[in-house]
Amino acid sequence: MHPGDHRVCFVGDSFVQGTGDASGLGWTGRVAAAARAAGYDLTAYNLGVRRDTSADIAARWQAECDARFRSECTPYIVFSFGANEMTALDETLRVPVPGSVENFLKIVGEAQPRCHVLFVGPPPVGDAAQDVRIATLCTTYQLLAGELGVPYLPLAQTLAGDPAWARAVAAGDGTHPDGDGYALVADRVMNWPAWWFNTVTR
Amino acid sequence: MHPGDHRVCFVGDSFVQGTGDASGLGWTGRVAAAARAAGYDLTAYNLGVRRDTSADIAARWQAECDARFRSECTPYIVFSFGANEMTALDETLRVPVPGSVENFLKIVGEAQPRCHVLFVGPPPVGDAAQDVRIATLCTTYQLLAGELGVPYLPLAQTLAGDPAWARAVAAGDGTHPDGDGYALVADRVMNWPAWWFNTVTR
Repeated sequence: MHPGDHRVCFVGDSFVQGTGDASGLGWTGRVAAAARAAGYDLTAYNLGVRRDTSADIAARWQAECDARFRSECTPYIVFSFGANEMTALDETLRVPVPGSVENFLKIVGEAQPRCHVLFVGPPPVGDAAQDVRIATLCTTYQLLAGELGVPYLPLAQTLAGDPAWARAVAAGDGTHPDGDGYALVADRVMNWPAWWFNTVTR
Repeated sequence: MHPGDHRVCFVGDSFVQGTGDASGLGWTGRVAAAARAAGYDLTAYNLGVRRDTSADIAARWQAECDARFRSECTPYIVFSFGANEMTALDETLRVPVPGSVENFLKIVGEAQPRCHVLFVGPPPVGDAAQDVRIATLCTTYQLLAGELGVPYLPLAQTLAGDPAWARAVAAGDGTHPDGDGYALVADRVMNWPAWWFNTVTR
């Protein structure tokens, strides 16, 4: 048993919410269950909202996390967003890159001094043009996270070339994977040295 | 397959959050997975927060639900709270009954005209004196819900006498049940005629 009352807010979009996973667990539910099985007293709050961009998240993350962190617990936030801003909207994007960068710095920069923070990069969504934009945004986010000292797990490029991910998205709704796809992401998080709740023997 | 894009916010306390359930599903995750298995396109947002009273929920439910309901979906809210206000605090309760009644009417009364609303009554918490207060509050809430025309599922009295629930709470942390206890609650919700996503053959 590991000591402490650990409360994690997972803040992001549909990929945090677990959309497409019949079990409803998503990757966040899987990593939380694995941490509990390894002896951590962990409460997971899933604050993923379908269609959310960095602009939507900037407007809500603080109030929602504040309502969930009690003084007697150790607070953690995992952010994960970026795919939805790269959706084409008429002649532009839902959130063009400069605004997305600004939102990232505002959100992650304000969270980082307050609690433990990680960032899980956006996954590909199965649309070739959008996936190129997501991969580029992912690289930009990774640089920004490095400047802030926040560990960053890139997914966009590595998942895009993984046939198991492609199968999972095909078995899901064409954009979101099924449970097998979320299990792939959960494995990457649990094998990430920055992840707080070590459940994998290395 | 049933038509529609159904999005349900489950708003409440630790019993909504699923505290004590190693799987992390709680009763809300179980009823949502069953609805999906029965062919409903259902997105479940778990907005249960540990230690929350009706006063805490009054302060956050609208902003949190508004951020999750998109114009293209059908919105539903299941509220469930009441156990935490009946916790003794010095000479009084965390939220004395008149305040709890006022909060209930404010929250449920404001939600009811806006979307489909149900109320799942608070469960017993394994403390004899508190459980008497919870059972009384449950009866009061049930009357108020009736006046508002909101279906109400009482749990406090029936679970308190159920040996399977007592075993689940003993296997949990003494206040919250383990997964078997949450499965009992899920069964009651799925067998409730007011439940929207019929998964049980009657």
